[in-house]
Amino acid sequence: MDIVESKQISEPIKSEAQISHLALDIGGSLIKLVYFSTNSDSSASSSSKDSVAVSSGNEGRPVLEGKLHFAKFETAKINDCIDFIRSKQLRLSGFQKHGAPAGEKCTIKATGGGAYKYADLFKEKLGICLDKEDEMDCLVAGSNFLLKAVHTEAFTYMDGQKEFVQIDHDDLYPYMLVNIGSGVSMIKVDGPGKFERVSGTNVGGGTFWGLGRLLTKCKSFDELLELSHRGNNRVIDMLVGDIYGGMDYTKIGLSSTTIASSFGKAISDNKELEDYKPEDISRSLLRMISNNIGQISYLNALRFGLKRIFFAGFFIRGHAYTMDTIAVAVHFWSKGEAKAMFLKHEGFLGALGSFMSYEKHGFLNLKVHQLVQQSPVDASRGGDKIHDPPNGELNENQSIDCSICLS
Amino acid sequence: MDIVESKQISEPIKSEAQISHLALDIGGSLIKLVYFSTNSDSSASSSSKDSVAVSSGNEGRPVLEGKLHFAKFETAKINDCIDFIRSKQLRLSGFQKHGAPAGEKCTIKATGGGAYKYADLFKEKLGICLDKEDEMDCLVAGSNFLLKAVHTEAFTYMDGQKEFVQIDHDDLYPYMLVNIGSGVSMIKVDGPGKFERVSGTNVGGGTFWGLGRLLTKCKSFDELLELSHRGNNRVIDMLVGDIYGGMDYTKIGLSSTTIASSFGKAISDNKELEDYKPEDISRSLLRMISNNIGQISYLNALRFGLKRIFFAGFFIRGHAYTMDTIAVAVHFWSKGEAKAMFLKHEGFLGALGSFMSYEKHGFLNLKVHQLVQQSPVDASRGGDKIHDPPNGELNENQSIDCSICLS
Repeated sequence: MDIVESKQISEPIKSEAQISHLALDIGGSLIKLVYFSTNSDSSASSSSKDSVAVSSGNEGRPVLEGKLHFAKFETAKINDCIDFIRSKQLRLSGFQKHGAPAGEKCTIKATGGGAYKYADLFKEKLGICLDKEDEMDCLVAGSNFLLKAVHTEAFTYMDGQKEFVQIDHDDLYPYMLVNIGSGVSMIKVDGPGKFERVSGTNVGGGTFWGLGRLLTKCKSFDELLELSHRGNNRVIDMLVGDIYGGMDYTKIGLSSTTIASSFGKAISDNKELEDYKPEDISRSLLRMISNNIGQISYLNALRFGLKRIFFAGFFIRGHAYTMDTIAVAVHFWSKGEAKAMFLKHEGFLGALGSFMSYEKHGFLNLKVHQLVQQSPVDASRGGDKIHDPPNGELNENQSIDCSICLS
Repeated sequence: MDIVESKQISEPIKSEAQISHLALDIGGSLIKLVYFSTNSDSSASSSSKDSVAVSSGNEGRPVLEGKLHFAKFETAKINDCIDFIRSKQLRLSGFQKHGAPAGEKCTIKATGGGAYKYADLFKEKLGICLDKEDEMDCLVAGSNFLLKAVHTEAFTYMDGQKEFVQIDHDDLYPYMLVNIGSGVSMIKVDGPGKFERVSGTNVGGGTFWGLGRLLTKCKSFDELLELSHRGNNRVIDMLVGDIYGGMDYTKIGLSSTTIASSFGKAISDNKELEDYKPEDISRSLLRMISNNIGQISYLNALRFGLKRIFFAGFFIRGHAYTMDTIAVAVHFWSKGEAKAMFLKHEGFLGALGSFMSYEKHGFLNLKVHQLVQQSPVDASRGGDKIHDPPNGELNENQSIDCSICLS
């Protein structure tokens, strides 16, 4: 996320928005936020205004109509995140622990390693306690929630074609969840709260961005990703044809254009780093890492007989080449047996799971409106546009219409 | 291999050595040679001299006593290899095809993609035809030969301890062979000539050397490897503790020192490439790639229930940290169920298999003396010292005592 985007996100979504029930996922590279807003500045007990319907829910408890919103910040710029939360003038009522006197102790749900690392900072700067939730619990809760509640959440991507997949709620489990953040977690999900982290790899989004930054001097992850769009990996990768004099190695099914060795051409070219185009470096790196994740994910899915692999995490960013490489890797290694799928809210599984733990602990009930409103965002204002993928298509408005019932 | 080593290898092993039956493996990064030498300048039919015993074998065919020698060159410096072969004044008798008039057509066995790519160059410069053998066939033949014929070939490496493994010839198969060259091949071996290339990865030795060269400006693979010896990967890798504020993530068994994201720390440090020590970069890169290969190898061994995984190829070079990382990866991911083993002649499987194809085609019979002579090499001369691993222990003299029976 570059500075311009960060500013956009820091703007209030609507000037009169009322924010409550914010939850965090503080990872190694990024902080992800999920929060609920109504379009009214009225409290839960006041009358409805604008499009916000406040009605009586079960047992007469107030129901708020509104949206779930998503935002992200670089972990290295955590103060921007703190300023954002402060600027939202959070209604604290929803965050107080049961039985605690008003204004005494404000807590917000948080997951990821940063919930531990930055607990003191949140206390000091905002007077907020971070109520820690387990990272894997949250990823799985977020994933299960999205796959069940949001109609157009999961999709396949092949040959540039995105296709939404309708999930049969009775046939969701088991599946493999691959969350690609700075590192990668691979989780076998067997049901609500039933899962096992079966594998992972330390070659993930942090590797792409860390190595990419050193090799190209790019200033942001998105800039590096954008560069890859125009690059040609064959400039640096050693292909089968480079070794075999342009021929295929047909006996074992490797065509001349198969990558034999990522970055392998750099060993014999009499070129320095500066002689390579950043575009080509970015492309090779993205392909190497995406393909590697696809391969290890498939091998783990195979162990447990899982045919469906959902890829999430902020490494992907709805980026066509990333998804295409992952999908092709899964297809190639599984000989078409397994299928890669992607999630529209890819980066927010942990934060959503963290948000949902309010529900788990009896603070609220969340009811998502089945059809996600794909309302156009006013581009001049930025709004809750989270990132700007090169293909411009995905994630333009990820907010989710829902109602919450305060308990 | 740097220039100094290249010169060392180009020196004749002994001035009076008689070379015959040379075979090649021309890969993407390196050319590997295996050749037989006697210590006499006498031909097979002449009387024995020095330590070379020439006797009558089966059916009165001449038997030559001598050694198998190994050498390597960078593929990018293929002319050095051609000069080396020319300087050896190869006795051509052993290379002629059956029935061809003497001096008419000289062929040598060759495998690897370069056997196709450089066929014309060998014809033009040396008048030699490269008789192509399949790369996987040769790797497996070389591996089977070494594991059966050489007593101290396979060893485990753990916590800095090398331990030779005695292979029961009746219990060798099946096993997994992982050959790490520029790219990586993973082969399930079920018996002599019975095998399947089940997987591979394009993140291999070419990736280490290619990326390492771009990141550190090192002039040779061995220099890069040597650097890694003094490096600290924690300077650049993002550890679990970096995310969790120094804590372990105990619930899923990740200690604070586990690498969460290779090169992940480079995303938030305000450092340029020049601000990192090449030693640390090399260490992180070596660990990332070795660990990744270990993980993918184990996952593939698991698919086929293979407990023994032999790692070979010139990426390893008897390097302690590489072997340790691979062994730890296999141990970690298999929860101690599978075992990584290494081969003393790691880089020469393909070349050996190529050499043995003379036998397959009825040109000679090879009989290895069971005990490998670990004769000291005169360091001042270089001799057949192939490479100079940082620990100085392995591969000091890889030559194999044997006799060949010309048929």
